[in-house]
Amino acid sequence: MVKLTPNPSYSLSIRLELPNQAGMLAHVISAIAQCGGSIGEIKLLQQSRQTTMREMAVDASSTDHADSILSAIKALQDVTVHEAYDRTFALHEGGKIHVTSRTGLAAQSDLAMAYTPGVGRICRAIADSPEKVYSLTCKSNMVAIVTDGSAILGLGNLGPEAALPVMEGKAMLFKEFAGIDAFPICLDTQDTEKIIETVQYLAPVFGGVNLEDISAPRCFEIEQRLRNLIPIPVFHDDQNGTAIVSLAALYNALVMVEKTLEGVKIVINGAGAAGVAIARLLKEAGATTIWMCDSKGILSKQRSDLNPQKQEFAVEASGTLADAMKDADIFLGVSVPGVVNPEMVKSMAPKPIVMAMSNPIPEIQPELVQNDVAVIATGRSDYPNQINNVLAFPGVFRGALNCRASEITTNMCLEAAYAIAGLIVPGDLNPENIIPSVFDERVAPAVAAAVEKAARKDGVAQI
Amino acid sequence: MVKLTPNPSYSLSIRLELPNQAGMLAHVISAIAQCGGSIGEIKLLQQSRQTTMREMAVDASSTDHADSILSAIKALQDVTVHEAYDRTFALHEGGKIHVTSRTGLAAQSDLAMAYTPGVGRICRAIADSPEKVYSLTCKSNMVAIVTDGSAILGLGNLGPEAALPVMEGKAMLFKEFAGIDAFPICLDTQDTEKIIETVQYLAPVFGGVNLEDISAPRCFEIEQRLRNLIPIPVFHDDQNGTAIVSLAALYNALVMVEKTLEGVKIVINGAGAAGVAIARLLKEAGATTIWMCDSKGILSKQRSDLNPQKQEFAVEASGTLADAMKDADIFLGVSVPGVVNPEMVKSMAPKPIVMAMSNPIPEIQPELVQNDVAVIATGRSDYPNQINNVLAFPGVFRGALNCRASEITTNMCLEAAYAIAGLIVPGDLNPENIIPSVFDERVAPAVAAAVEKAARKDGVAQI
Repeated sequence: MVKLTPNPSYSLSIRLELPNQAGMLAHVISAIAQCGGSIGEIKLLQQSRQTTMREMAVDASSTDHADSILSAIKALQDVTVHEAYDRTFALHEGGKIHVTSRTGLAAQSDLAMAYTPGVGRICRAIADSPEKVYSLTCKSNMVAIVTDGSAILGLGNLGPEAALPVMEGKAMLFKEFAGIDAFPICLDTQDTEKIIETVQYLAPVFGGVNLEDISAPRCFEIEQRLRNLIPIPVFHDDQNGTAIVSLAALYNALVMVEKTLEGVKIVINGAGAAGVAIARLLKEAGATTIWMCDSKGILSKQRSDLNPQKQEFAVEASGTLADAMKDADIFLGVSVPGVVNPEMVKSMAPKPIVMAMSNPIPEIQPELVQNDVAVIATGRSDYPNQINNVLAFPGVFRGALNCRASEITTNMCLEAAYAIAGLIVPGDLNPENIIPSVFDERVAPAVAAAVEKAARKDGVAQI
Repeated sequence: MVKLTPNPSYSLSIRLELPNQAGMLAHVISAIAQCGGSIGEIKLLQQSRQTTMREMAVDASSTDHADSILSAIKALQDVTVHEAYDRTFALHEGGKIHVTSRTGLAAQSDLAMAYTPGVGRICRAIADSPEKVYSLTCKSNMVAIVTDGSAILGLGNLGPEAALPVMEGKAMLFKEFAGIDAFPICLDTQDTEKIIETVQYLAPVFGGVNLEDISAPRCFEIEQRLRNLIPIPVFHDDQNGTAIVSLAALYNALVMVEKTLEGVKIVINGAGAAGVAIARLLKEAGATTIWMCDSKGILSKQRSDLNPQKQEFAVEASGTLADAMKDADIFLGVSVPGVVNPEMVKSMAPKPIVMAMSNPIPEIQPELVQNDVAVIATGRSDYPNQINNVLAFPGVFRGALNCRASEITTNMCLEAAYAIAGLIVPGDLNPENIIPSVFDERVAPAVAAAVEKAARKDGVAQI
């Protein structure tokens, strides 16, 4: 298995005391470097004539690695480690989100307006004019992040409690990138009917629903049925979000290699939620030749083990992923680490585009095929061209909420992708820059504007 | 019907421009006073040699009343009203609660720790040790405020959307008075089975469930079944909260009149959620003689129209509310405005205690029986002895969450009541001071401590 480089997810905070002598800090830093640790911020906490107290953040590549770094520091003469903790765990202590009041309740009059008896007037106003729930409550800016914990990140079916940290993180992203209030709903059922029913009952409080980490193929039915059942937009980020960002990156990559979506052969490895949604959106965008593979190889018409979503993309050809990739212009991976080798990439058509989005470990490490591809993208932040859903979902919901869209249409997804791609102006487009950074502040507003415009064009905007 | 006095729930904010001359403001204020408006804060926004711009808050008793006050001001010579708006509606614009992040997401390393890939480590930790969901997520401090909108305040069955402003207000109270994060869940179903099932599915995210404004008798079954089904505390504020605060007030009132709960005849008017819960808690506290009435009179064993909860309190006697009140020591009203008249109060035993808690208009206006009662309490903030649930639920949940109670036991409710009552020390106890103010900052901590202690004694505390 490919080893991860040190990264902040395995980061330590270490508080240590050193003799106040020239060279002591260098000594510590070399020890960390020799273990392969990566040093972040170093704070000077206290300094006396004799000693120096410092706090440093050190990235490791695993908990074992973090332990070995810590042991190496502790082994140094004259260095005392006063405290060391795992920064990721510390950040999660007590949870990551809060529910807060927009105004205070300092006086009797605040209570009388925000609660009884004043609030009764607001209830009546909404009962008389139901659309006022949008202006007089939190609904218009509130999104439910719904999961059953059946497909958490790359970790699998860990259940609703273990999914909560991801949903809280998602709520943070909604707030940070689009000013949207989002709340985690982790359901203690994995029954399709029960999930649909529960979300339907929850809908009154929310302006939109973001489905998350629900395993395929149940996620297709849940999304489709909910779209028809409830009057607020339903978005499955693992499907729609991934598809939008993939299309955005692909759009710019194709410009780079001077090919068109209509003319290329596309191989998608992984036929779960993301793979199927990408294939569907690429088709809507004009793609004509898509070969999908699952763990058993090409989704072939000769196979009898395909669910309806896989059948939708079944082709005459059959064989392995390696067979599929021969002469392909584009490889899109939403599958598992390391399933692609350099020979497979070398068998592709000239100027191949590889998007290896398995996260955190891609289908193939970019280093291995750097000279064999025209463009390579991954899901990682430490390589160029990061395909990250956070480029899409905040802006998509911002746009949908702004115009009170009743649903999220295919056109809204397509326009979101083009808006993301469009932020890379032709002069800036190069093999290492096909998609904006997640910290590019233009992204969410651009996506929101494009989504809102498409909603109006499709007639689903309600204000 | 008894008319409301001007109050902040019908409050206007008026921005007006007056000539900068002595007496002009007095002129405006007299006009408002003549209409019966009550003036709150007056701000000076701008002042030139010629004119003065002011903004004033004016309480009215109804929207018609507010309109007439505004017309009276507009009719004044040389006074220009630049803007006037309803303060209660303005406060609700855009909703009252937000979901916020505890930490920022400014850098790549924040994302890597709070979201992927770092968050995956937290998910695994919870999957491996399920109890860690309490320390590593928002669960330990998060309460679901669940309603179906079937019995909103005194307004009735207005549905889930119209209930949302009340639930948001409740979330504000949880935060303000006990630092608890609470989130509104307004269900689009009024089916008992569906409500139970939905709350069960939602439980993983929450440390407790506060049921709210669900109509009787369904609320009894929903509460009881949920208590047995989910491993987190379930509290129905309209039942348990009202019962706790009523008992607290009654406890001190009985000290005042030198009677004991065991020896008094208690009449409860209203046999819905609150009435039944009060009767149950009073019984647990030692009350022996409770006569309950509903709109048809005394809950008599001779009646055949009683649901199981009403049957629980059926007595041999029969007759009207007036019949019941004869020689009663205590009247507790959780019913409708104006059903008690002075003659009925005069027919009570010596030193009667009247708690007329119908809100905002009590069963009898205190002015009418001031000289005929030993103690009178209402649900209103503009009379002494306000019986307000906010004295109970924030502290009850704070205590239950602090010790991770698996349920809220009868003892926890009783101890909460005694803790509230105990804050009025003997020297301060008088007919106008039997219960602390909702703004008494000692209340929630005292209740929390008592509830936590009782939970440990009852063996339901899990940490």
